[in-house]
Amino acid sequence: MNDITVTSECPELAEPYLRQVLDTAGLAVEYVRAERNTLYRRGADGEEIPVSDFAGGYGSVLLGHNHPEIVTRARELLTAQTPVHAQFSRHPYANHLAAALNRVIHRELGTDEPYFAIFGNSGAEAVEAAVKHAELDRGMRISALLEEADGRLTAARSAVADGATVPAEVCARLGVPATEGFASVEREIRRRNEKSAASPPLFLALEGGFHGKLVGSVQLTHNEGYRLPFKSLAAQARFVPNGDADHLRKIHAAERRTLLAADVVDGRITVTERELPVFCAFLVEPVQGEGGVHPLTAAFAGEIQRFCADIDCPVIVDEIQSGMGRTGALLASSRVGLRGDYYTLAKTLGGGIAKTSVMLVREARYRKEFEIVHSSTFAKDSFSCHIALTVLDLLERDGGRAYRRAEERGEALRAVLDSVHADFPDVVKEVRGRGLMLGLEFHDRSGASSAELRELAGSGLFGYFLAGHLLRRHRVRTFPTASAVNTLRFEPSLQVSDAELEQLRAGLREVCALLRKEAVAELLPSGD
Amino acid sequence: MNDITVTSECPELAEPYLRQVLDTAGLAVEYVRAERNTLYRRGADGEEIPVSDFAGGYGSVLLGHNHPEIVTRARELLTAQTPVHAQFSRHPYANHLAAALNRVIHRELGTDEPYFAIFGNSGAEAVEAAVKHAELDRGMRISALLEEADGRLTAARSAVADGATVPAEVCARLGVPATEGFASVEREIRRRNEKSAASPPLFLALEGGFHGKLVGSVQLTHNEGYRLPFKSLAAQARFVPNGDADHLRKIHAAERRTLLAADVVDGRITVTERELPVFCAFLVEPVQGEGGVHPLTAAFAGEIQRFCADIDCPVIVDEIQSGMGRTGALLASSRVGLRGDYYTLAKTLGGGIAKTSVMLVREARYRKEFEIVHSSTFAKDSFSCHIALTVLDLLERDGGRAYRRAEERGEALRAVLDSVHADFPDVVKEVRGRGLMLGLEFHDRSGASSAELRELAGSGLFGYFLAGHLLRRHRVRTFPTASAVNTLRFEPSLQVSDAELEQLRAGLREVCALLRKEAVAELLPSGD
Repeated sequence: MNDITVTSECPELAEPYLRQVLDTAGLAVEYVRAERNTLYRRGADGEEIPVSDFAGGYGSVLLGHNHPEIVTRARELLTAQTPVHAQFSRHPYANHLAAALNRVIHRELGTDEPYFAIFGNSGAEAVEAAVKHAELDRGMRISALLEEADGRLTAARSAVADGATVPAEVCARLGVPATEGFASVEREIRRRNEKSAASPPLFLALEGGFHGKLVGSVQLTHNEGYRLPFKSLAAQARFVPNGDADHLRKIHAAERRTLLAADVVDGRITVTERELPVFCAFLVEPVQGEGGVHPLTAAFAGEIQRFCADIDCPVIVDEIQSGMGRTGALLASSRVGLRGDYYTLAKTLGGGIAKTSVMLVREARYRKEFEIVHSSTFAKDSFSCHIALTVLDLLERDGGRAYRRAEERGEALRAVLDSVHADFPDVVKEVRGRGLMLGLEFHDRSGASSAELRELAGSGLFGYFLAGHLLRRHRVRTFPTASAVNTLRFEPSLQVSDAELEQLRAGLREVCALLRKEAVAELLPSGD
Repeated sequence: MNDITVTSECPELAEPYLRQVLDTAGLAVEYVRAERNTLYRRGADGEEIPVSDFAGGYGSVLLGHNHPEIVTRARELLTAQTPVHAQFSRHPYANHLAAALNRVIHRELGTDEPYFAIFGNSGAEAVEAAVKHAELDRGMRISALLEEADGRLTAARSAVADGATVPAEVCARLGVPATEGFASVEREIRRRNEKSAASPPLFLALEGGFHGKLVGSVQLTHNEGYRLPFKSLAAQARFVPNGDADHLRKIHAAERRTLLAADVVDGRITVTERELPVFCAFLVEPVQGEGGVHPLTAAFAGEIQRFCADIDCPVIVDEIQSGMGRTGALLASSRVGLRGDYYTLAKTLGGGIAKTSVMLVREARYRKEFEIVHSSTFAKDSFSCHIALTVLDLLERDGGRAYRRAEERGEALRAVLDSVHADFPDVVKEVRGRGLMLGLEFHDRSGASSAELRELAGSGLFGYFLAGHLLRRHRVRTFPTASAVNTLRFEPSLQVSDAELEQLRAGLREVCALLRKEAVAELLPSGD
């Protein structure tokens, strides 16, 4: 009946190399069903084998896999023949979703300033849109500054014609001959301003930060393996060590540019400097997901906020992994007192079924022209918006029971990880994170006495081998963070049970015991 | 029951400015249901009013809105709790989809070279992935060339130590003193090679081309309004007028860079040049969608193919709008004899319900390392892959009945547009396109005798006002192409009926009659 049915001998054409890597670590299982906090694979006799999911779709399934209410809503929308493809018409559902997000954000931030919404299809697309909006805004601010500088030059020229003087120190400062009067001052100011205004945009981001892998976003992602092969493709970022405000100020001092303006004070020309917006935006995750689960401290959040206010650089708070309730609030950043000019949300926004993301811009920064130059065929569609409204409803319902559940389950998970850390301080270096976004870092074993362990630790796949062992032996699914493979990440759903936490505890304790005795062979797929 | 229900007085936060523009042209209707070739809006009494959809989700619903088999499949997948979020595990469905696409591509191209598949969530994401892959490949090719040049320099140095001579003309050509012998030759070759290798990548694309609006892809999209505000964000493209092979060669001559190598021939050092891959890729749409529905001719396709082969520049064939059967073949490019090193597919690949895209790379160009550095949380998921398999099945079934239907309906639509053109040659300039991807261009009326018509023609919204009139008076949905607002675009589904074609004919004839008599007031929303 199906002309395109493919047999199982079909060639490997969808990332065969990745498949080999997964095979190496014993991770290449196939899941056939997903429900609540569980993914199911098939056993040898065709029976379903449950796997407790602590990977949670990299943060996409806070509400659990195939949440019944979301599935029901999705089926209803399909049955009702919702107009998925109705571009360039009214999208009241998108507007309702934007308003609903605003209400929660206003409550968490204690503000009533609107945030305008631009929808996308993935987290990375939301970052791309934020980057584009910030650059559109930067360009418009530079144009306004140049226009203002131009007006002041014109006024100064008139004043000179009317008798205002050009002090010698002004010429000296600009390096122009005092003999030529204002004409050379004006020419030099224009030359310098044009040069400064042409400076390429720079982004600020944190070391360990992850903001996506599209052409623009990957340059804001710190991991060199992901970023450097593509560095000629997009604007550059300067990376700041998490917590290091001095470094931030050093970058600013090294990269800042100014525009010059001429004014007349007491009948004499003076030249003043104005900061040029070289820094297009500062991107920050409240809890770094891929970088090793590093939470932003309230103190450093405050430093970033003040620094960005000082230089008028917008803050893009990337809540793609941390947001949507995972840390007990819609915005994890609201819990460390950070207020974004922009927010990006995705992952759980789609309820584990739809693909959707949103980029929010506060009114004070919003450029309505962006709506005319940016769009996406698939974005802002009825299906995704309605699903996201259901997700928000599930979070907000009963006075925010879901947020409280995220906190409570997060504390229970944290207690498990802390107890493993306490019992194996020689194996586990640290437990970090917030709410249901936690990481457990293993000590670096590249100096271990066992040659096998040294090799494993240096393979670049250390955490993947541990994850493979947990999967095969303990039916626990977790992965290392992408840029810090010694850290296992835990982002289960709200439905994670005490029994699953005990399953995780047993698995981690066995892994720690094997690492303690350097019994590497038992950790590998071949040791099963 | 729903804590986040929003009342109808909710503020406009999701693109309010766009909403105003739609209002101006009378396009801000709300659709409540979609089926086959029809979108439904509500009338004053709550009744459903059908609108014939010739916009077709910008090419996303070739199979019709909410195709019953696709809806059924989607509902089945949801009911079966398909594991949507199972990243980093086996994805046999993705592999089946890649194999199925390969089978059709092999048939259409007459080749058996495999194309490897990297999945994304939107057309623009597929372009971003192609751009990244091409740049990874370019970097690796440059490294290999530098390494080879280095080896030859080393060999030449040894040969000189063994008595080979350095001719004076070699030194003269490199501008180094002949007195210093090979050392200065080697130093100069290394200096020049390092400089050349650092040249930023350039992309080639056609004028009028559209390849998406993310940070990387928007720089490959010709429309200046979309591209220029963001030009500092990403690598640059050189745009070639469609059909102008001379221009192509001029760009090449202006931008090409070479690497130097030293060899020993007959005991004498010689210096040879090798083309450096400055040109990262050439992006081309077989039929330009947003640029005004301009098909690529077989002749120019051949020129592009030969040019790219000569300079070893990969061809990225963007089939996002033209592909998936719309012109009577999976790949519209196969009908003009163009073979891509890369293909991008999206829109109808998701069947009008799922959001999915794929970037395909031929084996000869494929870099398996890409699988390790590129990924997307939402991509390659079971839901989208299974829906796309159903879409491919619907296209391929019954010996490709859908392709034949696209051709037949395309011819019927073309006949309608041609007849309007024939009857109103003073109003309609041209009809263009292939299959179910057709455009009708109106003459520029910015020099009309009526001041109202001149104003309309110069508003930048000319086609949108015509579309508004067609929608309100004739229940026909169409839009101008994004970068050529005098061209209306027609991309209906396979289900478009003869009655709908007559509805379109009547609507276009009335619009043409109004334009002929310059009765602008009747075209505007206020004229209803």
